[in-house]
Amino acid sequence: MGKGVTYPFGFYASGIHCGIKENGKEDLSLIYSISPCVSAGMFTTNQFKSYSVIWSIKNIKNEIRAVLINSGNANACNGKKNYLLTQKLMEELGTKLKIEKNSILFASTGIIGVDLPYEKIKNAFDKLIKNLSPENNYLAAKGIMTTDTFPKECEINTEIKGRKKEVFIGGMAKGAGMINPSLATMLCFITTDAVIDREALEFALKESVEESFNMITVDNDMSTNDTVICLANGLARNKTIHIDSSDFENFLNSLKELCTKLAKMIAFDGEGASKFIEVEVKGGWCKKDVRRVAKKVAGSSLVKTAIAGENPNWGRILAAVGSTNARIDMKNIEIKICGVEVFRGTEPLRHNEEKLKNLLKNKEIKIEIDLKRGNFSATAWGCDLTEEYVKINKEY
Amino acid sequence: MGKGVTYPFGFYASGIHCGIKENGKEDLSLIYSISPCVSAGMFTTNQFKSYSVIWSIKNIKNEIRAVLINSGNANACNGKKNYLLTQKLMEELGTKLKIEKNSILFASTGIIGVDLPYEKIKNAFDKLIKNLSPENNYLAAKGIMTTDTFPKECEINTEIKGRKKEVFIGGMAKGAGMINPSLATMLCFITTDAVIDREALEFALKESVEESFNMITVDNDMSTNDTVICLANGLARNKTIHIDSSDFENFLNSLKELCTKLAKMIAFDGEGASKFIEVEVKGGWCKKDVRRVAKKVAGSSLVKTAIAGENPNWGRILAAVGSTNARIDMKNIEIKICGVEVFRGTEPLRHNEEKLKNLLKNKEIKIEIDLKRGNFSATAWGCDLTEEYVKINKEY
Repeated sequence: MGKGVTYPFGFYASGIHCGIKENGKEDLSLIYSISPCVSAGMFTTNQFKSYSVIWSIKNIKNEIRAVLINSGNANACNGKKNYLLTQKLMEELGTKLKIEKNSILFASTGIIGVDLPYEKIKNAFDKLIKNLSPENNYLAAKGIMTTDTFPKECEINTEIKGRKKEVFIGGMAKGAGMINPSLATMLCFITTDAVIDREALEFALKESVEESFNMITVDNDMSTNDTVICLANGLARNKTIHIDSSDFENFLNSLKELCTKLAKMIAFDGEGASKFIEVEVKGGWCKKDVRRVAKKVAGSSLVKTAIAGENPNWGRILAAVGSTNARIDMKNIEIKICGVEVFRGTEPLRHNEEKLKNLLKNKEIKIEIDLKRGNFSATAWGCDLTEEYVKINKEY
Repeated sequence: MGKGVTYPFGFYASGIHCGIKENGKEDLSLIYSISPCVSAGMFTTNQFKSYSVIWSIKNIKNEIRAVLINSGNANACNGKKNYLLTQKLMEELGTKLKIEKNSILFASTGIIGVDLPYEKIKNAFDKLIKNLSPENNYLAAKGIMTTDTFPKECEINTEIKGRKKEVFIGGMAKGAGMINPSLATMLCFITTDAVIDREALEFALKESVEESFNMITVDNDMSTNDTVICLANGLARNKTIHIDSSDFENFLNSLKELCTKLAKMIAFDGEGASKFIEVEVKGGWCKKDVRRVAKKVAGSSLVKTAIAGENPNWGRILAAVGSTNARIDMKNIEIKICGVEVFRGTEPLRHNEEKLKNLLKNKEIKIEIDLKRGNFSATAWGCDLTEEYVKINKEY
């Protein structure tokens, strides 16, 4: 089992049931660092932001010591008094942890429009703090789940020159429902013991999110609660990583890799999904074009249902590509499904249909598109669309 | 039963089975005018256009006499030789009808990437022409259906000053699958006996489509085949309608009304739909804002599944509104579901939940949103998202 957010030095985690979820499962998690952290965050662009998000945006530039996360209640669109409750809750937790309330971040996921279960959360603080441990990362990862079917954790090492040979990065995430075009919440918490300045951390996080979590959502639809936070407590004692230092690229690549792994876990765990879909687009005129096409195809309901039906309907793929305004060589496009070339130039290609139908029975489906207009490429991830998705969301 | 496209003077229609659909249903339709028509068309913006669309775009400005429509085959992404077949087919039909091939428009809907069934269509021309009649509008409306569960027809009268008191407008349409965010095809054919110049007809059609068909699709995703065509044969002998003549507004309003009725029929007949959803947005800063919000809410998978589950989940409505960049008064928004106010200002409102749950059992669900920022309003239409939709699209 992985170590997730407690993989880097000096991070503890805890996850308990405080009474929000009716099924008795973990619904309250805490990440705690033994020393202050430089932090970076990316938050939902939705105009209606959860009060938890509003709190975190306000405090992200402080020296951070802890992150509280509850699941089962979104703390969004529930009236102004809940912002006061949020502040009070942070104050209570600060007192218990003997740290400033402004050094705590907060994230929530769950039902919108319901009062924050202030008493339930507050009364659970003693137990939550008592359970803080480098071993409880798995329980913390469970405490942030909603309709996820498995906790998502990951960790990675990065080589750093100079005195220290390595720094550690760990993370946990929760999924985004059907991912697209839904508004279900995506949360991700990343920890590292690297010494890194704020500018470098912010840049690295933005770049990494762009190529990972943003490639599993379409049209930048965001929930009221989407949050990605990265904490760096500096305990690795490496030479400070600046945006122009030679170690920065290593750190950035590791962070990207970690985020991509978590993003793929989210796609794999899409609500009701039976298959994982990877869409690789190359030959693009610019980065924007290939990203747009990859996300459009991975997010197309018609492509998603065709994959669910193990139906090699490349016409729907082509229609999704064409519905974007990406630059395409209309006379020279290439499409492969599961490695089998089905379209080239302006013509469908003869292929072994039996073989392709068999390949579509796999759990992981790859779609490759070559736009033949340039050298940019991008990959998006998604899942198929099944009857089960509809069933889950009728009731949730 | 209505008269649809044969309602105005001088239009004949026909619909037969030529052998494309395996179930023996009508799959080939023809609209014919006894005198030449001024015509206007709006076609898909998809970069991969059906060869039928390419043909029609090329000929729309000619004097039009007929429109051929087949269902079951999209004539799209099937290789260049199919454009030659398309031209040959138009020539054959022209010869049979004793009109120029360039006076015929063509539309197709069905499976992408399959050769145009040239022989089947050509061999059916004699029967198709023999059946032309002012009575066969219903068969023509059936011949353009794919997964539609009922033919969609409509007609309307417009008052015109001067010698003639009225002109007639008729239309038929086929639906757009799940409507959003799918790429299934929407076709609409409108006929009128009005005397109207091209500029006025083009403007009226564009305006009407904007407020009707474009309010049932989201993100302007379009299929390879989407087509709206309006033919005006001038047999009403009214004084020519120009864009600045006093009759223009009457004509425009009637065309809008006709298009809106057809658009609502399409929304009502969304694949697998059990409920019709109307989203009315008012108080907008500008037209673009209200249109965007209305379409976003009507197109949200989470709103659609909630409605399918008869679940008054206004949080999903609010999240969909917030995910747009429309100007909103965040402290003063109002939401009603089925006439029951559920959110005002920044607070959820206490309401009779039992009553609302009962209202949600209805087949027609209305959502009202007041953005409180201005005087613009717009309405969008959609349907709920059910397990049945997924089932249809896994197999189709």
